[in-house]
Amino acid sequence: MGGGTFGGIETGGTKTVCAVGSGPDDVRAGACFPTTTADETLARAAAFFREHRPAAVGVASFGPLDLDPASPTFGSITATPKPGWSGADVVGALRRALVVPVAIDTDVNGAALAEWRWGAGTQCDPLVYVTVGTGIGGGAVVGGRPLHGLAHPEMGHMRVPRAPGDDFAGWCPFHADCLEGLASGPAIQARRGLPPEALAVDDPVWTLVARYLALGLANVVTVLSPQRIVVGGGVLRHPTLLGRVRAEVRAILAGYVRVAALAGAIEEFIVAPALGERAGVLGALALAAQGGPERD
Amino acid sequence: MGGGTFGGIETGGTKTVCAVGSGPDDVRAGACFPTTTADETLARAAAFFREHRPAAVGVASFGPLDLDPASPTFGSITATPKPGWSGADVVGALRRALVVPVAIDTDVNGAALAEWRWGAGTQCDPLVYVTVGTGIGGGAVVGGRPLHGLAHPEMGHMRVPRAPGDDFAGWCPFHADCLEGLASGPAIQARRGLPPEALAVDDPVWTLVARYLALGLANVVTVLSPQRIVVGGGVLRHPTLLGRVRAEVRAILAGYVRVAALAGAIEEFIVAPALGERAGVLGALALAAQGGPERD
Repeated sequence: MGGGTFGGIETGGTKTVCAVGSGPDDVRAGACFPTTTADETLARAAAFFREHRPAAVGVASFGPLDLDPASPTFGSITATPKPGWSGADVVGALRRALVVPVAIDTDVNGAALAEWRWGAGTQCDPLVYVTVGTGIGGGAVVGGRPLHGLAHPEMGHMRVPRAPGDDFAGWCPFHADCLEGLASGPAIQARRGLPPEALAVDDPVWTLVARYLALGLANVVTVLSPQRIVVGGGVLRHPTLLGRVRAEVRAILAGYVRVAALAGAIEEFIVAPALGERAGVLGALALAAQGGPERD
Repeated sequence: MGGGTFGGIETGGTKTVCAVGSGPDDVRAGACFPTTTADETLARAAAFFREHRPAAVGVASFGPLDLDPASPTFGSITATPKPGWSGADVVGALRRALVVPVAIDTDVNGAALAEWRWGAGTQCDPLVYVTVGTGIGGGAVVGGRPLHGLAHPEMGHMRVPRAPGDDFAGWCPFHADCLEGLASGPAIQARRGLPPEALAVDDPVWTLVARYLALGLANVVTVLSPQRIVVGGGVLRHPTLLGRVRAEVRAILAGYVRVAALAGAIEEFIVAPALGERAGVLGALALAAQGGPERD
């Protein structure tokens, strides 16, 4: 496999990051450019990789993605409001341009894989990764593989109970008051008229945000029983939010005999990322190294 | 492995079922007796198996269970109000009595494994199994293995939004108005003063039950992205409830572009069990055949 040299691409809402290497301590080259149309962005990534000749390429992409290997559109973006990306055949375009295997998964499954392999979640099975920023996304690694089935996890769109007295309508265009609609960065901004980073650290909105994020994580615990949850994203830059979320999760599950393991060390159960903003592109490298399903 | 002959035990709240064989079309012997204390019940099961000499034994057990192979109490029941079972070393007792490998998992993970291997969920990855009866439980098979991590899934204890106007306090002793507290058999009985099977099929409580079960299943979709969900249990004997749950799940996820796959064939996505009440003990057989983790 070309001396273990892989290529990774993280396609984000505003920028695309590329790297060549084999892991966090061995990134041999990198590139970063604005995400424009699919055609232009993928051509630019391909041009970068052509110089470096990786043995395989991995993509950690915004969604929604078709990850069903039996589907004729496997490896494509499905319906998205993002101009120039709806239906884009990401895997096909890169494979044709580079003639190497191309693996793909969601950006959050990629980040989960990177944190599981090299970061805050080694030895944890399952490992869950949740990001809270312009949206709320979650990915998971189960048995060493990113989790998907019918589609891929969309943890931000789960429904949680309202906090008493909270009558904010919610911001999600699909579900109004799902978790993302109640507690993502844009939801916070819609509630308070200012972006999260401009709010006082003791603004009362943070009490609501901690409550909703904790309800979401507690629900993830009941469904997936992860061994650890890594929580990142811009909203978590708030200095005490993660601690408040931990306390709320413990309270929500309190008395819950079946997860007594939680009572001891909640700080080791809900943790910050170790790889920071590099988790996505490192996850793409890990996807390339692991190999993804090929279209049937 | 003794000609592929395995032993399976399903320990339930009121009765314990044992079987010897290799699958649903090859059950060579069976036994059923009341679940009394752990010592008595496990001794009775061991006496039955001694006659049949299975190569390995699997247990599909009520919980909560310690499933951490690194734990000194792996394979035991943890805290339970059930007399004579708190701390019972299920795996140890059977292994000492029979001197064969003993695998264990939750009753619902066992049922999920049986439905995945022989029933309504073959070829589905992940497969989720949910039962709605005296409690609400959920299990899953991911990558061919029952899902657990920190502990095991406890899907019935997730939190969901209240239906408008529903002021029932909830019945769960731990969380009051978690899913199980709002929509299990005892919750229905507490709401209406009659057990579910005594209520009219058009009793208004069924509208609430369908809504809550659908919110729960929709949340499972956002976290696990299963390829199929099998839904069983006594409450689902209602003749139209499963259909109403399907319609509600579709409505809750409507417009949700990322699970467009759901729009087509919800009847193939949320299905009734194929193995009926045999799923538990068949799951125990499947656990024996698959082999579980041994205590470290």
